[in-house]
Formats: sequence, structure tokens, C-alpha cells
Amino acid sequence: MTTSERFSIADLFTESAKEAPQPMFGAAQQGHVPLISLAFGLADPALFPRAELAAAAAAVLADDAAAALNYGPTYPGLIEQIVTRLRQEGVEAEPENIIAGYGSSQILGLLPQVFVEPGDVVLIEGPSFMGAVRRFQDARANLVTIPVDEHGMNVDALEETLRNFAAQGVRPKFIYTIPTFHNPSGVTMPLERRQKLVALGAEYGVVIVEDDAYGDLRFEGDPLPNLAALDSEGWVMRVSTYSKTLAPGVRTGWAYANPEIIARLQKFKIEGGNSPFLTRVIARYSADGRYERHIEELVKLYRSKRDRMVAAIEREFPAGYTLVLPEGGFFIWLTLPEGVSATALLEHSKTKGAAFLPGTHCYANGQGDNEIRLSFSFQPADQLETGIARIGAAMHEILA
Amino acid sequence: MTTSERFSIADLFTESAKEAPQPMFGAAQQGHVPLISLAFGLADPALFPRAELAAAAAAVLADDAAAALNYGPTYPGLIEQIVTRLRQEGVEAEPENIIAGYGSSQILGLLPQVFVEPGDVVLIEGPSFMGAVRRFQDARANLVTIPVDEHGMNVDALEETLRNFAAQGVRPKFIYTIPTFHNPSGVTMPLERRQKLVALGAEYGVVIVEDDAYGDLRFEGDPLPNLAALDSEGWVMRVSTYSKTLAPGVRTGWAYANPEIIARLQKFKIEGGNSPFLTRVIARYSADGRYERHIEELVKLYRSKRDRMVAAIEREFPAGYTLVLPEGGFFIWLTLPEGVSATALLEHSKTKGAAFLPGTHCYANGQGDNEIRLSFSFQPADQLETGIARIGAAMHEILA
Repeated sequence: MTTSERFSIADLFTESAKEAPQPMFGAAQQGHVPLISLAFGLADPALFPRAELAAAAAAVLADDAAAALNYGPTYPGLIEQIVTRLRQEGVEAEPENIIAGYGSSQILGLLPQVFVEPGDVVLIEGPSFMGAVRRFQDARANLVTIPVDEHGMNVDALEETLRNFAAQGVRPKFIYTIPTFHNPSGVTMPLERRQKLVALGAEYGVVIVEDDAYGDLRFEGDPLPNLAALDSEGWVMRVSTYSKTLAPGVRTGWAYANPEIIARLQKFKIEGGNSPFLTRVIARYSADGRYERHIEELVKLYRSKRDRMVAAIEREFPAGYTLVLPEGGFFIWLTLPEGVSATALLEHSKTKGAAFLPGTHCYANGQGDNEIRLSFSFQPADQLETGIARIGAAMHEILA
Repeated sequence: MTTSERFSIADLFTESAKEAPQPMFGAAQQGHVPLISLAFGLADPALFPRAELAAAAAAVLADDAAAALNYGPTYPGLIEQIVTRLRQEGVEAEPENIIAGYGSSQILGLLPQVFVEPGDVVLIEGPSFMGAVRRFQDARANLVTIPVDEHGMNVDALEETLRNFAAQGVRPKFIYTIPTFHNPSGVTMPLERRQKLVALGAEYGVVIVEDDAYGDLRFEGDPLPNLAALDSEGWVMRVSTYSKTLAPGVRTGWAYANPEIIARLQKFKIEGGNSPFLTRVIARYSADGRYERHIEELVKLYRSKRDRMVAAIEREFPAGYTLVLPEGGFFIWLTLPEGVSATALLEHSKTKGAAFLPGTHCYANGQGDNEIRLSFSFQPADQLETGIARIGAAMHEILA
């Protein structure tokens, strides 16, 4: 026995490092070669503005390289652009209200360090974006699920939950909500519920984390005010990203919040500001209304892909499913016909060369085996149709 | 009183978020307009490869945009380049041994989550890189300082410390060391000490974190094996970065370690892989030996700047200081003449328009007021000379 066989590296790990890390969604992303995956919310590469981003990068390196390539903070010009857009939406933002991160998922992942000691109550929607929920679970939050219906979070159920906790002297740390083009369910919360949600945050002194990754991708209907615009008391934190509206690879999300919260998020963002190069490239690209024009193009593309997918579902799936047509975003959320399990359907669909996200991945409380999420964002339209046909065939066989 | 005046957001914060975040080094980085700061280890923008990076970015966006701009892991091709360089240095690396981060400071900042519960013992050098040490302090590690002399960490003192802890049944979590072109002291640890350090890690079952940010910038003398190359038992973790050899703005550092450690670091790197775009740009830039040729150019530049600074010190400073000429890196570390306090000298130098890093910033235990760090990396050579002349004038006045 050598001396070091007496010692295990694992014995040096913290409690939270001891648990082996788990891949977020397992093997579906690999798949067989011919697998058409409708599981993930990747962006459509067809509209990545390659040449424009290359031109922006060249311009930044030609005339601003000394700042772009050295150590430094997030480019203040990009923060200004974010502030300007927020003000156009009725949010009284200042630069001190903003932090940029390597994707909004980084910012969501930092929230537990700011707010969550093990056992603290966090309220989440059921279903919800599991990337965020998983981080809250990793922090050993006590996750309490508030149901979502076709109008988003059930705010009456939320109120009852808050009232019950208050009666026990428990103050939840935050409410995580996706009010617009919800991930995964696609639904959008109407104005009245938004107002009540914001009022409940103030009444019970609970931060509302509004995840608005998809809000700019509205296919139809009138825009609704975001929660931050309805908030006059500083309880709403708004999180968004360039991943869905420009490209995930620019790795830049952002949050608007009370400066006290922003300062703490920055403290735990250990590597400092966001890439001084990438944030300059985004700002350069976005100048002169180009970013807004690009979003208009994306809306057309994703709307047509949503329509192609829904038409394919109507054509290929057996009767008995239900879905709510999303007015924007990346996802169709579908309740399966009675007797079809999402888990079993996924296994069968994979043998036919198609995959989706089973609803069980979207709840912290184990439910969801009668629901699936189908992403229309990534695959080309003909692949969407082939994928839906394969899943439909699998459903028919299960029901036969 | 409105309802929400009953509640404070601060009451929702975790214990570690309650303390207000502090800027790393305070106001010196701002300075007055004419201030020549020799305080920070910024890179010299003169050799940023602007055109080549723009060409690499354009090439990536022209033929690899679908992967570069979507969600995805750190570019495997860059990991392969890192592995190849490690193997050339005698480290038996595989891709599973490597993680990339947004600068090596991100990886160092993640270490406490993997290893440090409050009160755990971490051994650090005195002086050391305070960016890292500050993160270990934030995690409430019990930091124990091992002295550094002109040959790096005093490994006999380390051995005694390890023996004493072992006698108490305490196993330190890791030893943080900068064996080559030490920050701030500039010294390099000879082979015999390296061998003993690696052997002590294995003997006591303690991880050795080898920070090698500057190791490629050798101005003279023969290269020494890095600690990872001397380690056959897996206790050495090696951390390095493209910040000093390419540009800080590419925000890419990396670590080599036991895969068990890499997996945990990845778990706590909540935003996932490192920018699929930036990592492709770096790999594209680095192909065909260009990275190595660029390092040769940097070595020439920084060597001449070191020589200019040392000559200016000899010319301008009053007798009584001591310094060890660094064989590489970014810094001159200087012991002040008796009777000169670094803190007082900094205040006086600032009134003359020059700044440096007082030694007190480089120790976790409060010592260092008789030492200063002078960075020759960032300022143009004529500014180095003017800055040194100003600091020298301030020293003369203090001693007068």
C-alpha cells in the first residue's frame, strides 16, 4: 500500500460536491444517428446572423481591441442598450439595476447563493423550466409547486400558499415564474393575474423572479406588460437573454433587479463581468435597430414552424390529446391521450427515430407522465413533420 | 406604512450574501486621470493579435456557425489542443482531465464549492495571488500561510505544518501554490522543492493546486517541470489560462485534474461549458503553431519591459530596497527600505501620479506593509519609467 492509498480525494469534497453530478437530461441528446430530437430548446441556426456578427467582431477588434481584449467589466454600452429597451417597456431601469451573465441560466443558477439556505421555501410553477428548478433543488431548497393552467400560474393557489406559510411564520424566498410563452407549457398569463401576482409579492415580501427568455418572440396577440413594469415596490427581478433572440453562442443573459440583489449576484459571479469582447460584439451588432429587425425575422420563422408542427400533430396524432396553442416561444406542450405514458411513449418513439421531453422532467414533484414538450425551434420544418409523424405512429401503436 | 415596508429584501439573503460585496482592490484602478498605475496584471494591448483574432472569428462564423452560435459544450478541439500541450510537458492528460472556465479565476473561485466547508484548512503561500485567496476567505476557509522565500514556498515549513495538522487529526483540503514566476513575488521554485512538494501532497493526501498563469512567459533560464508533470498519484491540479498568453478578453482559462475533481468543478460551473464561439476562435487562432509563435513575441516584449523597469528602479529608488529579478511573468516584488511603509508610500505616490499594489493586499495574515508589487506588463515602457520615477521621488521624500 503506497502512502496515498490511505487517502481518498472524495473525502476532501464538501457535502454538496459529494453527490456525483448528473447530466441534465440524460442520453436523449445523443440519440442514434437518425434520431430527430424535439426535446431541447435550441435556436434555429438558419437565422444566425453569421456575416453580421463577423462584421461586428471585426469592427470591435479594429477600433476597440484594447478594451475588448483586456480584463474589464461587461461593456457599459450593452448595459445601456438593455436599460433603454427596459425603459421602452415601462421599467424604470438604471445601469445599477442590471447584471449580465453567461446566459440567463448562469444568473438563475446564482440565485440560490443569494437567497437559499438549505430548507428555505421557494415557490415554483408546475410545470416549469427544469434547468432552473434543478439548481434550486441542488441548493436543497424546499420547493413548493404552484399549479399552472391555460392562463399561467394559478395565483389564487399562490395566495393560499403564501397565506398558509405566513400563518406558520414562514416567508418564502422567491417565486420563480415564466409569465410569457411559458416553458414548457407555452401559456401566457393575462394582465389581471400579473397584477395580482405582483401585488402578492409586495404583500408577503417575497421576491418574484420573472424569467422572460421568450417574451420577445410573440407570434400574435397584443403584448402584455411584463411583471417588472407592473412593480412599483422593487420585488420583481426580471431575467432575460440574447440566447433566443440573437444566438445562444453569444452566451449573454441579463437580469434587472433591486441594486441590493444585483450587487450580491455580482459577488457570486466569481469571474467578474461578462466577456468584454462578446458584450461589445452584441452591442455593435444591435446598433441602429438591427437587433429589433432580426427579432421580427425570427418571429416569422418560429411562427411558421409552430404552425407546421401543430398541423402535423393534428394530422398524425390519435384523438384524445389536448394542447393550448402558444402565442410565442419555442414549445408545444401536449397532454397525452388517456392510457399513454410519456416515459413509455419516449422509449417507443426513440425506436422509430424521434424524441421529445417527457413532462416528468418539468415538475419538481414527480407529476407529468401524461404530458410531453415538443420543441419546434431547432429542427428544420420537414424534420419537425417527420419527427411528429414518428411520435404519432408510436402513439397509435401504444393505443392499438 | 405600505405593506411592503414591513419587509426588507436583505432579510431574504443567505448568510454569505448578507455581507456587502467589496471591490477587489478599491479605487486605485480608477485613479486620477494622469495616474500611472503599476498595480494590476493587465496584459499589454500592444501585442493583442487583433487582425488574426478577427480572421479566426470570421472563419468560425463562416464554416462552423451552427455549432459556435448554439448551445453546446466547450469546443472539444480546444480541449485537444490543451491536452496536446500538456502531453508535450510530460503530463499524461486526457480530455476528461480538463475543464475550461471563463478565466482561471473562475476555476479558482469554484474550488471552495468543491472542497471548503467553513473552517476547513487551506494552505496558501505568503505572499500570494489575492484574487484567489479572497475567494477562499469568502468561503470562510481557515487559511494558514506558508512563507515564500527567493526559491518559492518553503517546503520545510509546509512539511512541519502538515505534520502538526496530521497530529491533530486535521487533513487540509488543498495547498494553493504558484511555483513558476510567482504572483506577486516573481520567484520560481527549483526542482528539488517541486519534488518534495508533490511528495508531501501524496504523503498527506492533500490536493496541490498549481496556479501556472505565467509559466509560458519565461525570459531566461531553463524551463522546469511543472508540478503536474512530477505527480504520479493524482494529487496535483494544474490551473492555467489564455489571459496572459493570448488576451484576457478571450476569457478562457482551464484546469487539469483528477476527473473526479473536474466533474465537481463542472457541476458548480452552473452555466455549462465555456463559450462555444470563443473556444472555437481560440482554437482556430492557435492552429499551425501560431499560438507558440505569439508567446515568443510576448516573451521578448515583457522581457524588455522588465529590464526597463528594473533599470528605472536602480536609477530612481533610494538605496535600501531589495528585489529578486524574476525570470518571467508580469511582476517585480520589492522589499522597501527600512522606515518606508507601503501604505504610506502609496498615498504619497498617488499625489505624484503613480500607483502600485501594496504588499498587504498579497497576504491573508496582514503582513506585507514593507513590500510592494510593481507590474511591468500593462503600461508602455516610457510610462513604466515615469511611474517608477514618481514612486522613487515619493520614497526619497519620505526618507528625507
